[in-house]
Amino acid sequence: MSENNKSTLIVFSGDLDKAIASFIIATGAAAMGKQVTMFFTFWGISLLRKENYHGTGKKSFLEKMFGWMLPKGPDKLGLSKMNFGGLGAWMMKYIMKKKNIATLQELMETAKEMDVKLVVCSMSMDVLGIKKEELIDGLEYAGVATYLAEADDANINLFV
Amino acid sequence: MSENNKSTLIVFSGDLDKAIASFIIATGAAAMGKQVTMFFTFWGISLLRKENYHGTGKKSFLEKMFGWMLPKGPDKLGLSKMNFGGLGAWMMKYIMKKKNIATLQELMETAKEMDVKLVVCSMSMDVLGIKKEELIDGLEYAGVATYLAEADDANINLFV
Amino acid sequence: MSENNKSTLIVFSGDLDKAIASFIIATGAAAMGKQVTMFFTFWGISLLRKENYHGTGKKSFLEKMFGWMLPKGPDKLGLSKMNFGGLGAWMMKYIMKKKNIATLQELMETAKEMDVKLVVCSMSMDVLGIKKEELIDGLEYAGVATYLAEADDANINLFV
Repeated sequence: MSENNKSTLIVFSGDLDKAIASFIIATGAAAMGKQVTMFFTFWGISLLRKENYHGTGKKSFLEKMFGWMLPKGPDKLGLSKMNFGGLGAWMMKYIMKKKNIATLQELMETAKEMDVKLVVCSMSMDVLGIKKEELIDGLEYAGVATYLAEADDANINLFV
Repeated sequence: MSENNKSTLIVFSGDLDKAIASFIIATGAAAMGKQVTMFFTFWGISLLRKENYHGTGKKSFLEKMFGWMLPKGPDKLGLSKMNFGGLGAWMMKYIMKKKNIATLQELMETAKEMDVKLVVCSMSMDVLGIKKEELIDGLEYAGVATYLAEADDANINLFV
Repeated sequence: MSENNKSTLIVFSGDLDKAIASFIIATGAAAMGKQVTMFFTFWGISLLRKENYHGTGKKSFLEKMFGWMLPKGPDKLGLSKMNFGGLGAWMMKYIMKKKNIATLQELMETAKEMDVKLVVCSMSMDVLGIKKEELIDGLEYAGVATYLAEADDANINLFV
């Protein structure tokens, strides 16, 4: 292994398939002993939303619209391709369950247990009008400088 | 910081959200003292088109078709998701303006001022039939070998 | 050139344009003397399907559905944007042929001749129900740990 012991992933997409790929890479790298940072930005923040949070707090009309349109958590995500109104996502989840492949929720739990750092892009939260109370626990909040400082020390840096 | 002082981004996508993310990363890295190269390929070239250029030069019918279909510059881009025929892009631009977040145009200006190298993939220009006179000033034109030489020396290399 | 002599690409997308970009980068890096590994996962596996394989083997109904929906090989891929039911892909292929730019099939042949390693993600094959006999010859089959081991030693790592 190289002497460099960090990896970063920017999770820009809010698609189920890309989210699964991101967490498989992240947990795989953590299992190799890497210190992994995932930086969630734009649609990627959808993954971290609580499914049952319904308060909207003080939001503008447009912020509320983004709030309604963005999926609430891993179970609500669609596929980047062949989603067919959710059928594709359902098929993929059904098959993965039947074959005993870890679900996205399980991968996210594993990532937390392995101390993968989950960092949310504060600018994206501002743009999409997402508040901290809408998101799951155990997250850090930071800007692009924090991401770049981690990536600068890492040798595997991916944008998903 | 690592001793390595370069970063590269391949901007493949022509989406507003991915363009904003790319330029935030690029200007952030430049602010850290990195020498940043952005390599625009395929749909990413849309970002660099002049809004008001109407000459089509000597183009084949298919080249003209690509020319009509590709957005002309940063103000014409759509979102990668939830664009709803331009409504989503309008919402995002409206919110960013209201919250005093830099627009894509401003980020592009900042990138130029910070000496971020903007390199256009000459093969993509050939395929899409885009001519130099259709693009903004201050660009370099090169092929994949130029990108790879920069990326080989860099430690943050992303494909957006 | 840096002392580091490896590059990796994760080919997640099954789009013609992203496939072309991936193989241009891969063959370009191989031409520079890099040892290149391409890791095909999720929809990226479509690129490696044989066009004329029609047996379905023992597949469940859902696996057959994925099999029907996924494109069979490089000639059946669509564009990530402006595909218009295949018209965009046809336009791009027509123009590239007319301008004597290498087709995706030719790029794939070149990659093999240059000893670019083509590795297929075995978990994705399992999820999509794709069997080895459906795929072209000359591939390796492995999991994320194999990818990470290569990427850890490489200095250009991209997710396409």
